[in-house]
Amino acid sequence: MSNGFLAVKNDEPGRLLSLYSELQIRRLNVSLPLPTVLKNSFHIVDGPPSSAAGNPEEISKLFPNMFGQPSAKVVKGDPTKGSGLESKSLKIGVVLSGGQAPGGHNVICGIFDYLQERVYGSKLYGFKGGPAGIMKCKYVELSTEFIYPYRNQGGFDMICSGRDKIETPEQFKQAEETAVKLDLDGLVVIGGDDSNTNACLLAENFRGKKMKTRVIGCPKTIDGDLKCKEVPISFGFDTACRIYAEIIGNVMVDARSTGKYYHFVRLMGRAASHITLECALQTHPNITIIGEEVQQLIAELNEILAHDAVDKAGMWKKKLQSQSRELLELLPKAIQEQLMLERDPHGNVQVAKIETEKMLIEMVETELEKRKQGGAYKGEFQGRSHFFGYEGRCGFPTNFDANYCYALGYAAGALLHSGKTGLISSVGNLGARVEEWTVGGTALTSLMDVERRHGKFKPVIKKAMVKLEGAPFKKFASLRDEWALKNRYVSPGPIQFVGSTADDLNHTLRLELGAQA
Amino acid sequence: MSNGFLAVKNDEPGRLLSLYSELQIRRLNVSLPLPTVLKNSFHIVDGPPSSAAGNPEEISKLFPNMFGQPSAKVVKGDPTKGSGLESKSLKIGVVLSGGQAPGGHNVICGIFDYLQERVYGSKLYGFKGGPAGIMKCKYVELSTEFIYPYRNQGGFDMICSGRDKIETPEQFKQAEETAVKLDLDGLVVIGGDDSNTNACLLAENFRGKKMKTRVIGCPKTIDGDLKCKEVPISFGFDTACRIYAEIIGNVMVDARSTGKYYHFVRLMGRAASHITLECALQTHPNITIIGEEVQQLIAELNEILAHDAVDKAGMWKKKLQSQSRELLELLPKAIQEQLMLERDPHGNVQVAKIETEKMLIEMVETELEKRKQGGAYKGEFQGRSHFFGYEGRCGFPTNFDANYCYALGYAAGALLHSGKTGLISSVGNLGARVEEWTVGGTALTSLMDVERRHGKFKPVIKKAMVKLEGAPFKKFASLRDEWALKNRYVSPGPIQFVGSTADDLNHTLRLELGAQA
Repeated sequence: MSNGFLAVKNDEPGRLLSLYSELQIRRLNVSLPLPTVLKNSFHIVDGPPSSAAGNPEEISKLFPNMFGQPSAKVVKGDPTKGSGLESKSLKIGVVLSGGQAPGGHNVICGIFDYLQERVYGSKLYGFKGGPAGIMKCKYVELSTEFIYPYRNQGGFDMICSGRDKIETPEQFKQAEETAVKLDLDGLVVIGGDDSNTNACLLAENFRGKKMKTRVIGCPKTIDGDLKCKEVPISFGFDTACRIYAEIIGNVMVDARSTGKYYHFVRLMGRAASHITLECALQTHPNITIIGEEVQQLIAELNEILAHDAVDKAGMWKKKLQSQSRELLELLPKAIQEQLMLERDPHGNVQVAKIETEKMLIEMVETELEKRKQGGAYKGEFQGRSHFFGYEGRCGFPTNFDANYCYALGYAAGALLHSGKTGLISSVGNLGARVEEWTVGGTALTSLMDVERRHGKFKPVIKKAMVKLEGAPFKKFASLRDEWALKNRYVSPGPIQFVGSTADDLNHTLRLELGAQA
Repeated sequence: MSNGFLAVKNDEPGRLLSLYSELQIRRLNVSLPLPTVLKNSFHIVDGPPSSAAGNPEEISKLFPNMFGQPSAKVVKGDPTKGSGLESKSLKIGVVLSGGQAPGGHNVICGIFDYLQERVYGSKLYGFKGGPAGIMKCKYVELSTEFIYPYRNQGGFDMICSGRDKIETPEQFKQAEETAVKLDLDGLVVIGGDDSNTNACLLAENFRGKKMKTRVIGCPKTIDGDLKCKEVPISFGFDTACRIYAEIIGNVMVDARSTGKYYHFVRLMGRAASHITLECALQTHPNITIIGEEVQQLIAELNEILAHDAVDKAGMWKKKLQSQSRELLELLPKAIQEQLMLERDPHGNVQVAKIETEKMLIEMVETELEKRKQGGAYKGEFQGRSHFFGYEGRCGFPTNFDANYCYALGYAAGALLHSGKTGLISSVGNLGARVEEWTVGGTALTSLMDVERRHGKFKPVIKKAMVKLEGAPFKKFASLRDEWALKNRYVSPGPIQFVGSTADDLNHTLRLELGAQA
């Protein structure tokens, strides 16, 4: 009998400071820096009217009140100028929506501190368990004592989250009732692409009904797929990647030491591969599969197979773009064959399952066994599979995520205070010191396009996928040949909170900012 | 297609400093403290003759030259006194044996620095790939430049490790040939219980053949099951537990936040459950299964079922010790039944597989489904299984492991320098500052007992199991009822290398030292 244990959750809420680890206490008492523009008198200046990410006509029909709104910028100056700040106290609600991401608690702390410091007599309500808390009017009034234990801590347990959506007319009605009952001036929705789309629909609905309740979104997701020029990164991505990279780095040292195992790692995530790309840039694995690149290869293969003959000598491969050709040749032969041969009735590649780490191990085993029998391989192959997911969603936020979230929350407070609605809190100039970060809000409708579902147009914030022409992928592509054959492993080690490099930007953000400059 | 990647090892050796992460570089340049007694002039004083952990007559027959050796203590004073230090230069070999444990590189650095600083003109050879390197005389001469990149770094890749044993007469002969060829004055074997037993057999063999080569062992294993009064802890345990506890703490915050999943965690390890116990003390899971306790329960059950009737009302349970009864009642009913009913032909409980995290999830699912149909359970159960293993073996050693290993290595150098053999490097008084640590060597034969295998006595260093009457287990037992029903989770967070608590002792060591005092 060896070692197993069960960390079973139950419903008892709240954290006990008496149980905090030394690091939890130390992080609790770190005071967070704010962008200078938020520390002094400021007002908000509007930019030019906005459009949409695609199909502006349809977006304007879906959001008649929100469409075309200018972005807002917080600038130093007389608070009565610009959009002006309300002089009365505010009642604000906040909700966490969807999967956890390190830093969520700090967004709430930022909103709370804004109200405490800037809008005397205001109240902040935390809706419990995600959007369902809005619909059922389940909330807690947040106080200094209540939120204190959550400062700079991971998790979403201060008010918890949920995946419900406010979609049907009945559900919108419930949200309205809650807004009226609590006399809400504003609501901050902390979530990913869907949740921010939902936030915009709520903003539109409240404005359409001439209600005073404004809605501001905040960009949350470890996947890193909610971003645009004004919102350079979603929070949680930085921490999650660093946690995964620590573990991957350890496994690499293990591999280098034993010389016995081949490790196959899968990381949490959906369609976009930003996490995988960032972890690869941090650790230099021998082979990295970026989903977006495989999609590109598959698209080209489909095209070729539909129109051209495939010759045995492989001359047809010259029709692939060089990047796709390199990728194809990097893949194990068995997977190459699967890509070429196994087609669905429409002639498309069937890729539903080829991503799993265990399947890859099996395919490599099969291939090597074949080569062994043919005398072409003499080694021993032992695969080890890993999936890293929950480990990263709830870690202590890095200094970057802690600071970024605090600024996002503080900015959301400022936007609501100046009467804004339908914007997503936007903090920029992230390559500079926190003091020099820029602060504002971006029209949510400007991030939107439509998708046709069941004959109707539905608004969506397009997921930001890894761009194959983007600086992070290009950097990776320029190095992977070297990583493939030589062990260029890097071991980032555990996240540190003090020291000269504790505030460094992750590779993705640094490269994307550099590419913009 | 989502995110997977392959960290494939190959045989290119060596680390490139140009690829080091910021933290790797920072750790590289940390200078390690030494116990004061090793910083000044010292000599070595012998204690009283030793015996064996069991069957001293058999041990004395197996180790005629080693048995009864006194333990050695390094004390301040004239180096020509006591056992005296050799005045000529030394040729020393070092080998890493068995699974990786954080800190192994620092043991080697400690030996190297001792020779550099204390024994002018000495050489240190690193045998490659474990004991096989000794037998095949595969080695590298270690130099300042060669070992520099490995200081305070995880892994065993400086010279790599292996699981071969030197057992047969032919293999002993190969070891002798290597010792003669390299003119070895000494050999340091860094390993677990088996490897240290092997080290003692080598020491006995060399001494029996009147060879000058001495052998000193060092206590390595993340499992923490190689320890005794003089060797309070094996290195690597501290770091591995802290890495696992970080991840477990994150998963707990996740569980608390989502309120949706029940996480089942299995940790790397063999028979002893020190890692599980330490992680439980660091994080407070709701349920913890300590193998040694289950063994105790099973032993009592076997006794009762063999001699007594089992009544339906459960009166028979009163015959169990209170601790065993509590454990039985804590277990899911399905496992209770399995313990009672499923017997092998000898009437013993069949427990080969009941430890696995996935089986536990399935059993809980089955039990809850049954209760649901009976109307006794209305919740939703979603289990998530985790296995944490490789993540912890190769992390950056904590300050404790870094310092402890350096002292172990430096002490091994001192012991060889004073002509000692058949001892295990022993660093004590670990509750005090490094400067006050005590340093010495313990007769390996004093840790040994014999086991009868194939009709022959084989010497073994008994694995130190979790003691149910020991302070760490008692502490855990006094708190687990509270942890079971209330969420008392603690999140230790990532290992920190600077700050007021970076040097804190782990719970197991602190409690064991406290209990001794």
